Amino acid sequence: MAVYTDVSEGELEAFLKEYQVGDLLSYKGIAEGSENSNYMLHTTKGAYILTLYEKRVERQDLPFFLGLMEHLAKKGIVCPLPVQRRDGQLIGTLADRAAALITFLEGVWIRKPNATQCREVGRALAGLHLAGADFPMSRPNALQIEGWRKLWAGARDRADEVEPGLVAEIDREFAELERDWPTDLPGGIIHADLFPDNVFFLGNELSGLIDFYFACNDFYAYDLAICLNAWCFEKDQSYNLTKSAALLSGYRSVRPLSDAEAEALPLLARGAALRFMLTRLYDWLTIPDGELVLKRDPHEFIRRLRFHRRIRSTAEYGL
Amino acid sequence: MAVYTDVSEGELEAFLKEYQVGDLLSYKGIAEGSENSNYMLHTTKGAYILTLYEKRVERQDLPFFLGLMEHLAKKGIVCPLPVQRRDGQLIGTLADRAAALITFLEGVWIRKPNATQCREVGRALAGLHLAGADFPMSRPNALQIEGWRKLWAGARDRADEVEPGLVAEIDREFAELERDWPTDLPGGIIHADLFPDNVFFLGNELSGLIDFYFACNDFYAYDLAICLNAWCFEKDQSYNLTKSAALLSGYRSVRPLSDAEAEALPLLARGAALRFMLTRLYDWLTIPDGELVLKRDPHEFIRRLRFHRRIRSTAEYGL
Repeated sequence: MAVYTDVSEGELEAFLKEYQVGDLLSYKGIAEGSENSNYMLHTTKGAYILTLYEKRVERQDLPFFLGLMEHLAKKGIVCPLPVQRRDGQLIGTLADRAAALITFLEGVWIRKPNATQCREVGRALAGLHLAGADFPMSRPNALQIEGWRKLWAGARDRADEVEPGLVAEIDREFAELERDWPTDLPGGIIHADLFPDNVFFLGNELSGLIDFYFACNDFYAYDLAICLNAWCFEKDQSYNLTKSAALLSGYRSVRPLSDAEAEALPLLARGAALRFMLTRLYDWLTIPDGELVLKRDPHEFIRRLRFHRRIRSTAEYGL
Repeated sequence: MAVYTDVSEGELEAFLKEYQVGDLLSYKGIAEGSENSNYMLHTTKGAYILTLYEKRVERQDLPFFLGLMEHLAKKGIVCPLPVQRRDGQLIGTLADRAAALITFLEGVWIRKPNATQCREVGRALAGLHLAGADFPMSRPNALQIEGWRKLWAGARDRADEVEPGLVAEIDREFAELERDWPTDLPGGIIHADLFPDNVFFLGNELSGLIDFYFACNDFYAYDLAICLNAWCFEKDQSYNLTKSAALLSGYRSVRPLSDAEAEALPLLARGAALRFMLTRLYDWLTIPDGELVLKRDPHEFIRRLRFHRRIRSTAEYGL
């Protein structure tokens, strides 16, 4: 559930005067997105999402995120199109926060995706990688190994509270990942957070990719490894090989994987599991109970990390 | 901000099959309403609000609330129309909760209403009173003096924590209200919670009355007294006589007030201020910090109560 900034109709109407989106009909704060405040708007010209950027998003990164969405949308990727203001800018100010208006995409996110939907996600991810290749801006991935180290430094002292033995296990994991992490895989713009709640479907048809606020430059195969973590585990943490094979096959039908990329997948998937485990662990240990922020259990990703550590061949992913 | 129950797309699609509203396009949890979980839906036939009734609303009261909305909407009051299921019922079950689908009303609620808007609210309130007169069901007001007594019993011990001397002041207030409360004013269906966040406007035109979950049978003038509390105080708790006069004049242009009703207004307004003070005080003292429920400051209504206690003539309300 989003913590959200209240916006009065007067300040919103003044804000909308900077755009050519017609007259305001209604707006509702929506309980989605954990980083920003989001409103759904109806105007006489259609439906939009208004985002107010809260403290977790750096204002200096906004031109990258919004420029990327605009670039991808113009290349036919089904993602929100930031609406240009009359002055050509994509970013304004509302309620003392940076704010942007983006087009509303119909579709629902799927709590229990099927293999067909996983294939579509693979295809869409590869399409995003190809479409992003000529995007002129870049943004380093703040959540690479060095970033994980910082999160771990803030959580390590108390990590054994979550599970006895976790400190030693994660220390070993860091040592191995730092030793073996690849350095020369193909890379470019990645989404870096393509979980089911960031992908909309209408039936089995993928109708939208949203939430580009972790997008950055990194290995394409790392983005794919994030998706294996995000889409292929069932609620009981079993790995669904059918979905995994479909996701990988969908990806490769649009962008072939090199041998080096395929071989790196288990290690990249360990890294991805560690990355999501660490942000959850950090929040779990540092956010006071009762804050209006959803604290997600880090255990899921500890188990996923262990799964990937046992992988001996990419055939186990259905590749 | 609403506490809300998550609904999967699968269970929502199954739920919608009971209705003739077309196919689901999107749904978003909306951060409005403190009692229930609300989703905004787009379907191929239009926009709807889906409400899941949480524990604070009694399931046995739902036929009254939804039947009333249907009755009023059919009489031309701009309120949501509950959508009938294929079996003719207005109430279904979703995610183990009673649930209903109502039409979506465009409009925004006004943080700082002007006098024209106050006049429209008065007119709409009177229209609602007239339109409800032949609604066949009734529901006693659980928040009359006896109900306030129960809230006070649960808060009295700690009320002086909120403001020293409050216990003695409110005890005196109860004694006077119980002694002087009218018994024979005109009454019928009242909204009982017509605050600005429950009234939508498009410009100065009133486009919707929502949230009928406190509606009940009581004196019409008491509903009007609630509106004086809800619409005519400024943020600094000063009373805006222009807005008050406009609200009363708007009301009387649709339904005349008898002398007895007019004379009772100061006392009814004290009662209304006490009622909202008490629910806020009770929540303030009993809901643990950090629950996902908005706790509103009871002081506003202590000050409003004191204002009404000093009223010597209804001319001070602009009547």
